[in-house]
Amino acid sequence: MLSNMLKNVRENHPLIHNITNYVTVNDCANVLLACGASPIMADDREEVAEITTICAVLNINIGTLNGRTIESMYLAGKQANALGHPVVLDPVGAGASGLRTRTALGLLEQVKFAVIRGNISEIKTLASGSGTTKGVDADLADRVTEENLDTAVAFAKEFAARTGAVVAITGAIDIVADREKAYCIRNGHPMMSAITGTGCQLSALTAAFVTANPDHPLEAAAAAVCTMGYAGQLAQGRLGAGDGNSSYRNYIIDAIYNMTPELLAQGADYEVR
Amino acid sequence: MLSNMLKNVRENHPLIHNITNYVTVNDCANVLLACGASPIMADDREEVAEITTICAVLNINIGTLNGRTIESMYLAGKQANALGHPVVLDPVGAGASGLRTRTALGLLEQVKFAVIRGNISEIKTLASGSGTTKGVDADLADRVTEENLDTAVAFAKEFAARTGAVVAITGAIDIVADREKAYCIRNGHPMMSAITGTGCQLSALTAAFVTANPDHPLEAAAAAVCTMGYAGQLAQGRLGAGDGNSSYRNYIIDAIYNMTPELLAQGADYEVR
Amino acid sequence: MLSNMLKNVRENHPLIHNITNYVTVNDCANVLLACGASPIMADDREEVAEITTICAVLNINIGTLNGRTIESMYLAGKQANALGHPVVLDPVGAGASGLRTRTALGLLEQVKFAVIRGNISEIKTLASGSGTTKGVDADLADRVTEENLDTAVAFAKEFAARTGAVVAITGAIDIVADREKAYCIRNGHPMMSAITGTGCQLSALTAAFVTANPDHPLEAAAAAVCTMGYAGQLAQGRLGAGDGNSSYRNYIIDAIYNMTPELLAQGADYEVR
Repeated sequence: MLSNMLKNVRENHPLIHNITNYVTVNDCANVLLACGASPIMADDREEVAEITTICAVLNINIGTLNGRTIESMYLAGKQANALGHPVVLDPVGAGASGLRTRTALGLLEQVKFAVIRGNISEIKTLASGSGTTKGVDADLADRVTEENLDTAVAFAKEFAARTGAVVAITGAIDIVADREKAYCIRNGHPMMSAITGTGCQLSALTAAFVTANPDHPLEAAAAAVCTMGYAGQLAQGRLGAGDGNSSYRNYIIDAIYNMTPELLAQGADYEVR
Repeated sequence: MLSNMLKNVRENHPLIHNITNYVTVNDCANVLLACGASPIMADDREEVAEITTICAVLNINIGTLNGRTIESMYLAGKQANALGHPVVLDPVGAGASGLRTRTALGLLEQVKFAVIRGNISEIKTLASGSGTTKGVDADLADRVTEENLDTAVAFAKEFAARTGAVVAITGAIDIVADREKAYCIRNGHPMMSAITGTGCQLSALTAAFVTANPDHPLEAAAAAVCTMGYAGQLAQGRLGAGDGNSSYRNYIIDAIYNMTPELLAQGADYEVR
Repeated sequence: MLSNMLKNVRENHPLIHNITNYVTVNDCANVLLACGASPIMADDREEVAEITTICAVLNINIGTLNGRTIESMYLAGKQANALGHPVVLDPVGAGASGLRTRTALGLLEQVKFAVIRGNISEIKTLASGSGTTKGVDADLADRVTEENLDTAVAFAKEFAARTGAVVAITGAIDIVADREKAYCIRNGHPMMSAITGTGCQLSALTAAFVTANPDHPLEAAAAAVCTMGYAGQLAQGRLGAGDGNSSYRNYIIDAIYNMTPELLAQGADYEVR
């Protein structure tokens, strides 16, 4: 089932509008190309509504937000809503500054999101209206473990119910939930946290998967998470002498480029709760 | 002949002023270093005229334009013209939004360009004053093929005559033309479209080639296109098990780093029409 | 001794606030992760003071400065000073434009820096209040050689005394000095100048080393310089057929990822003057 989601991305070549940060933007573009989608980055108020109109989905990432681009996020988000295009939110660093928390919460109020994807600290910040985040990484105290997984799943479902969005909380164990059902995913590799932007890349991927599978947002988001995580495992297996996080970054994108629906069906490691 | 163009870049180490997008800017810098040039990126109105003054050529790329940087493009372009420095335009996504189309057309009106390089949809938009672009990729309906090549060559020559610039239209077959003569180039590999920024990189390369060969803008631009395309072929030949678009991106820049005039003379695949 | 500096970075995982350029920002993030630190990039006036507060150190790089981010540099720098956090300055291109020179000098006046790291032309510009820089590279006339090394060391010590900062002048021979003592470092490889951003990466690394070794800023900065340079040597030894500057960029970051205190102790090549 999840493998079909990837198949549909490769067949539809969706065009993705990204308003994203300048740290990982190149990787986001290349990961979208790797999965068969086509990226466009545009963040000026004078064009974002128009660019969103010609695209199939909007991906908003607040990683290096500023006054100029925040306005563009609102404009593009509302236009995407008006057109019925799905919108993905990556609330990078929500909780780390008032500006990030306010912006993420403001967007949640004024834009309807198809998927919200972040680490547990970021999502807790959105759910509670305030929070502490260790920069752009999750707080250790917040981490999802086998022990607190049921609580975390309940939290994700409740937040999904409240927002009407699919909620993807990624970490050592990933949770992808709507109000009724949650995928708990055990793909991925700890070394992925030694690369900048695997989260941003996943949000971009998720945008591609969700728009190519309009009737299955939950499964599409879960498939994107499995694809990214399994690519991280395959890339880790490819590491040789001398390789470190920079080669690993390349190998992950390479693995997504080479991912087939069959491979994904074999490698996806999840249970439904 | 074309191989001499590369030789002159490697001998002159030209300094290139880039006002470019934040998606592919790192690749543009590395590709310039790979060919023997030296990049500087500067986009603030308070410094662009000065930076242009100490450089040998200006490369304007509108890929992530905004109100602030558009003003800088005009300022730097006019200063480069006043100093007699060549200016290259990459009208990324012209046709995809009014802002991009207006900006590209406005620059064409107020700045004299040595080379305009884009895909066929972007160049058609500039030539007609309006157009449709599938994001930052060429529209399928516009594609240059063996069947419509003569028409496309005539179009390129006419637009070159009208603008006084060398016009480089890149795609499966590339056309590099002035008012009288066109190079039709069959280097490159389809996988290059699975990487973000090969077009941006080529525009940056073109700036280096044109300024290092001031008396031969047409041949210099054609040589840059052959260099990029042949690097794409060599890099493709280097792909091994597990490699995908991210490794391919590295291999292309590596191939430019290792490109010699002799190698280029062997690999350049073009005819003149 | 220097190897302990790396050990402390790996044990403390410091969080680094970077206000940096969009050309090399991804490499800076990955190199920080490679050495065991954690990067956050934030440049909006509405959040920089807050982000600096949750971080351990601030890294200011003026590579693609603009009116908006210059204001943020002042705000964050003053906040870091108020909190007693170390601040690193990378005056990219000081001397190449009035804006860069003025901004670097203004920051030096209003912010106390723990380390100032640049090439010889940039540092001379700061010391004299004006200068000429070949874009972002050092002027040939300025280069530090075995012949003028004692003069350069005296200059570095004098500038360190005047600013109260550790001064790191990097090039073929690197000098890292406080008012009394200078490390002359002969690590590194000429091919490092064929990659964009090795200087920016080093400044980011230096920020991590300095904050993880608060009582030894001179040794910490010297250790960062040795780490980067020795990684450049190890990466060069790894180059194979077809590899060029793009693979080299990856190999350098990989080498930092794999650098151990023991390896650094073996490879660090310096004398004290």
